Amino acid sequence: MRLVVIGGVAAGLSAASRARRIDAGLEILVLERGETISYGACGLPYYLEGRVRDAAELIVYTPEYFRKERNITVRTRAAVTEIAHARREVTLDGGERIHYDRLVIATGARPYCGIEGAELPHVFRLQTLADGIALKSYLAERLPQRAVVIGAGYIGLEAADALRRNGLAVTIIDSGACLLRRDDAELTAILVKHLKRYGVEARLGTRVRSIQPDRVEDSPCDLVVLATGLQPNAELAFEAGVQRGITGAIAVDERMQTNLGGVYAAGDCAETMHLVTGRPAYVPLGTTANKMGRVAGANAAGARERFDGVVGTCIVSVFGMGLGMTGLSVAQARREGFAPISVRIEARDRVRYFGGRPTSVELVADQKTGRLLGGVVMGERGVEGRINVIATALHARMKADDFERLDLAYAPPFSTTWDPLLIAAQQLVHKL
Amino acid sequence: MRLVVIGGVAAGLSAASRARRIDAGLEILVLERGETISYGACGLPYYLEGRVRDAAELIVYTPEYFRKERNITVRTRAAVTEIAHARREVTLDGGERIHYDRLVIATGARPYCGIEGAELPHVFRLQTLADGIALKSYLAERLPQRAVVIGAGYIGLEAADALRRNGLAVTIIDSGACLLRRDDAELTAILVKHLKRYGVEARLGTRVRSIQPDRVEDSPCDLVVLATGLQPNAELAFEAGVQRGITGAIAVDERMQTNLGGVYAAGDCAETMHLVTGRPAYVPLGTTANKMGRVAGANAAGARERFDGVVGTCIVSVFGMGLGMTGLSVAQARREGFAPISVRIEARDRVRYFGGRPTSVELVADQKTGRLLGGVVMGERGVEGRINVIATALHARMKADDFERLDLAYAPPFSTTWDPLLIAAQQLVHKL
Repeated sequence: MRLVVIGGVAAGLSAASRARRIDAGLEILVLERGETISYGACGLPYYLEGRVRDAAELIVYTPEYFRKERNITVRTRAAVTEIAHARREVTLDGGERIHYDRLVIATGARPYCGIEGAELPHVFRLQTLADGIALKSYLAERLPQRAVVIGAGYIGLEAADALRRNGLAVTIIDSGACLLRRDDAELTAILVKHLKRYGVEARLGTRVRSIQPDRVEDSPCDLVVLATGLQPNAELAFEAGVQRGITGAIAVDERMQTNLGGVYAAGDCAETMHLVTGRPAYVPLGTTANKMGRVAGANAAGARERFDGVVGTCIVSVFGMGLGMTGLSVAQARREGFAPISVRIEARDRVRYFGGRPTSVELVADQKTGRLLGGVVMGERGVEGRINVIATALHARMKADDFERLDLAYAPPFSTTWDPLLIAAQQLVHKL
Repeated sequence: MRLVVIGGVAAGLSAASRARRIDAGLEILVLERGETISYGACGLPYYLEGRVRDAAELIVYTPEYFRKERNITVRTRAAVTEIAHARREVTLDGGERIHYDRLVIATGARPYCGIEGAELPHVFRLQTLADGIALKSYLAERLPQRAVVIGAGYIGLEAADALRRNGLAVTIIDSGACLLRRDDAELTAILVKHLKRYGVEARLGTRVRSIQPDRVEDSPCDLVVLATGLQPNAELAFEAGVQRGITGAIAVDERMQTNLGGVYAAGDCAETMHLVTGRPAYVPLGTTANKMGRVAGANAAGARERFDGVVGTCIVSVFGMGLGMTGLSVAQARREGFAPISVRIEARDRVRYFGGRPTSVELVADQKTGRLLGGVVMGERGVEGRINVIATALHARMKADDFERLDLAYAPPFSTTWDPLLIAAQQLVHKL
């Protein structure tokens, strides 16, 4: 019985490792087309910044580790060119054919393209370890002075922060009206002001048609980072007859099964369920990839596990300010057919004598049912904890007036008697 | 229509303020037997430590503020000696009688007593602002060298920390076998070791029968802090015919109503519901007092609000280590008729290159139903956020395998790809 996993980063290796725990006798082969496996791509901005000195620090495990410790064979530079499901075979680019009994597709995602000039030598991405190394070398060797970051998602913002800390002038350009792809004008206004304070200009509502060697649209630059979002690497799967979901990524059920028997998909190539909207969503993130991979691997090895979906939690640090988001913004909620209302409050994150600093909380709820739909937390500290409380409440489909009564921890070193989350909830309930 | 509130600290003032928001025309009178109102008693250890320079900093609002800004009359040094509910009257110690239409009893709690020698001049409590000022003066004037803290609840630990930072040798004595009154030997062992590292000796399982001028049991000392836990100040209410609950505190329903029409109780004098056990519990804490007070005030003013109860969340900082607890320990869960299993894991709170430090997570679940029952989080950072996530899950009666799939925030500055909470949940689910 052989399990083949296509892809050796988050989802693929989670699947392989979990399958091994379920079935000690299974033959497990991981095929990775790149040169390295198991790296933390989310660390690339910090390698760029200089906090991570050596890109090798971002590599968690080596193929040797998997062979010796987990009895899993990992082949790098092994690009799969075809899945022939009728024969249960994958074909490598050298022509080699490999049989599988179970298959996990974890082929990840790639940046959107389609901008003229994207292949110029001063244009970089920040997705793979190789991308990070190339950009870091360029910084060291060519000493660029002015960067344009195309795309204002979290990778774009992290890249802008890292480049600014390297002394470059930085402009972020995005075709949308909002930062972080969250349809929230107030949030964008706060963030634009914060970026400006640290010398980063944000040009929103600007579609980039082409990249020139010395500028992007009207912004002069000698370095460009493309952070225009991700699209699933799923063509290989679709060509083999795997079903495409409404988001454009691979459709899977809660067992991570595709429409083909014995074929699973996980991670950035697959879609998942958004638990607030109840509809499929494409949310490529490492944490989700790990969870999907684990479940795919477990089920491929004969167990019966499920992954219900996500609530859309995301967090980013920009010039010392943490920004966490989960669930739906007001505009998203309205598009999904809810009757959203929201509040945004500013409060101290701790009592004054423990150096309380301002933090802001936005909560969104449905006026018809009182159900909590989403939230945003911003501040210098404690953002991850507070956004996680909101995320947990979203998983539980909690109502605003239950959220208001949460028994949250308080002592002076940690919070305020009324936690900012509860202050926001009180105001939200008052508006409902 | 007159609302009388007995007690001018957390619950009483929350009730009065909320009642004013509900009904602008209501006459509201708060009677406080002490000299000050609206102080943050939880800040007393930090006043003792020296972080809070002046006790006045702990006073949030003055009677004048309430009169001018909220049209609420606050009388201090107004001790109620009798509630005559048949006549709807309270009597003050001077003999004055005051009519009420609605009454909120928020008479708080007092430390357990009954130890011989508790009234000696070197014995202090840390409950009221006056207690804190007296102890602080004693430290400054008498320069005590060795302190014994009787009681190892959170106030005892905070007092030990504060006294140690003032240079005193400190011994904590408790009659129970566990610290923080949480029946958890492993937690106690970790904490005893931590205290020892900072020079505080913990003598557990030692019942103090009497305090001598120069020692407590075998421990020599020239200062004693009594932190033996609280009992409700409810005699006044019971004498008036208010029903006593099974915990010994005032019994209230989810509207904070007592058995007497128009009479509400809130805060440390009343019991509340424990949402994990489904049974009444006595959990005197400022956060709960505020929530109960708000609901009592709202309902007393004619609104219809409810407070369901608590999950037993508590947090304390001891020599730089945060310790958060919520729900039930294994031993408590067993006593409540559950079939508890638990895991305790240690993991990094953030990725290595953001200075990840060890943090530990204990989760308790019921083997029969998979329901999460409690948790403990310890570490230098992020403890409040993680314990609040567990608390939120307890409110939602979440099962361990749903908790395992929570969509928690991750980026390198904030956590690890698998948050310590999720690592613990995986191991818990594995054991279920």
